[in-house]
Amino acid sequence: MLSPLCFPVRLEEDNIFVLDETRLPFEERYIKVNTLKGALRVLGEMKTRAFGQVLLFFYTCVLHKDIDEVASTFKETRPTFDFDRLAETLKKYAREKEDLREVVNRIVKEFEKNRIKRAKKLAGLLPAQANVLTICNLNGELIYIYQALKEMGKSACFFVCETRPYLQGTRLTLWELNRANIPVRILCDNQAAILMKEGAVNCVIVGSDRSNKRGDIINKIGTYSLAILAKYFHIPFYALIQFPKDIEIEEINIEQRQEREVFMWIEKRDSWPRAIYPAFDITPKGFISDWIDISGKFEE
Amino acid sequence: MLSPLCFPVRLEEDNIFVLDETRLPFEERYIKVNTLKGALRVLGEMKTRAFGQVLLFFYTCVLHKDIDEVASTFKETRPTFDFDRLAETLKKYAREKEDLREVVNRIVKEFEKNRIKRAKKLAGLLPAQANVLTICNLNGELIYIYQALKEMGKSACFFVCETRPYLQGTRLTLWELNRANIPVRILCDNQAAILMKEGAVNCVIVGSDRSNKRGDIINKIGTYSLAILAKYFHIPFYALIQFPKDIEIEEINIEQRQEREVFMWIEKRDSWPRAIYPAFDITPKGFISDWIDISGKFEE
Repeated sequence: MLSPLCFPVRLEEDNIFVLDETRLPFEERYIKVNTLKGALRVLGEMKTRAFGQVLLFFYTCVLHKDIDEVASTFKETRPTFDFDRLAETLKKYAREKEDLREVVNRIVKEFEKNRIKRAKKLAGLLPAQANVLTICNLNGELIYIYQALKEMGKSACFFVCETRPYLQGTRLTLWELNRANIPVRILCDNQAAILMKEGAVNCVIVGSDRSNKRGDIINKIGTYSLAILAKYFHIPFYALIQFPKDIEIEEINIEQRQEREVFMWIEKRDSWPRAIYPAFDITPKGFISDWIDISGKFEE
Repeated sequence: MLSPLCFPVRLEEDNIFVLDETRLPFEERYIKVNTLKGALRVLGEMKTRAFGQVLLFFYTCVLHKDIDEVASTFKETRPTFDFDRLAETLKKYAREKEDLREVVNRIVKEFEKNRIKRAKKLAGLLPAQANVLTICNLNGELIYIYQALKEMGKSACFFVCETRPYLQGTRLTLWELNRANIPVRILCDNQAAILMKEGAVNCVIVGSDRSNKRGDIINKIGTYSLAILAKYFHIPFYALIQFPKDIEIEEINIEQRQEREVFMWIEKRDSWPRAIYPAFDITPKGFISDWIDISGKFEE
């Protein structure tokens, strides 16, 4: 059973339906969007993220037509993700074929195929009993990985950092793995070291919002810390990447989100001021054992 | 201005008043306790912890008289803390003097003096602008440290890990420093690495529930992770200790608390199963730059 998070954003006629990830796991609700402004609002409020923002970008381009305007406003709203790259890809494909909707559907299908391919590649590297530590949410890709492991006669248990402050680990990953009957445990982000020390996990798998050709990645805040700990405990650390770019990763604008969000999901949260909240961190290549790439298809 | 957390438990006549730390920062409420059973209940529910449990132990002994029974039942309820040591101390002093209440009052006063002394000692080691990363709650001792720094012409800002799952950092430390007008920022536990990397913090201060003479400490889950990160970034890591004992620290029973507590303080938390929750971790001596001791007084 796949996860609704595999395709959290859908295009139907002239409406985009965005799975409201901030309501999960309590409610599976879709927000209807059909303007650039509406798309920017759900993006800014993190109603969708990760693969969802890729889909939202493409579908917004189908409706709004002006790819450059979509890219620049999306980038303003969530500066860390590489929307320019998506725009380039889309424009390249669109040059060959006129109908943007058709182009986007083809790209999305390829994406899906490549995510499954990436999952199989990674599954091949994992031990027979993979006790996987992970963070945030990989939009159903853990389920692909689990299925690939099963096909290879391997098994897996996932240990998921709750991923404060938005709790994507608890709200999304726990939810999607649970409903697919895949063994999963939640831990607080500060408990990773003890799990590693006790040998409870034997690999780490993380996604990435950005990466460069050197191998540095940018991903959800907390990833860097896991990487340092994994290196200390000699645990392999795998990064799922896409579109690695020839850039200095330090040049990328790391999004600083509002401090009130640190108190989200906590009772009576409005009464607490004073927090810091860098939404992502950088993990240098030296910490990464292997990079599982999805990018091949768009390169040639 | 000191913190109510400096003395979270008080003895008045034949009643113990326990500051309910689980209600903070929303409500400053005291629970009246006057039996061993009542004391064990507030202890088990973590209504008080750290220095509060020291005070609760002593005052329960005053009311209940049977020191050994208090120690063994307290230990059963919260196995990681060294209640045996408190019992030994109390019995040693009580041998010289008959009135247990008077003995306890004297011990508590000494404790207070020694905590201030310990804070001064540590303040002497800190830089002129101390940007302190800390975790959990030190029962007002950060305020002593801040005052000591000020007296030395130094200043400080505290960066406090929110300390999931109980959020003692947010609920207690942020609250007590804020009301004392001391500069403070909250971070999610997974954000420590980026702060260290960016040079935003230049020292780490943690408490300890237990320690041995080798220098290993046991403290709130998350401490070990901070220690590994601090070592990686060459940031001094100071541990406040008391009663270091000649033991193998691995022999100490690390409390495993109920998984439902991982979802505490989170909306609709009852719907989320499957977590792990070791309540403490061990930080080996190699990670600790210096140990600031309070134990001298009871040794001779």
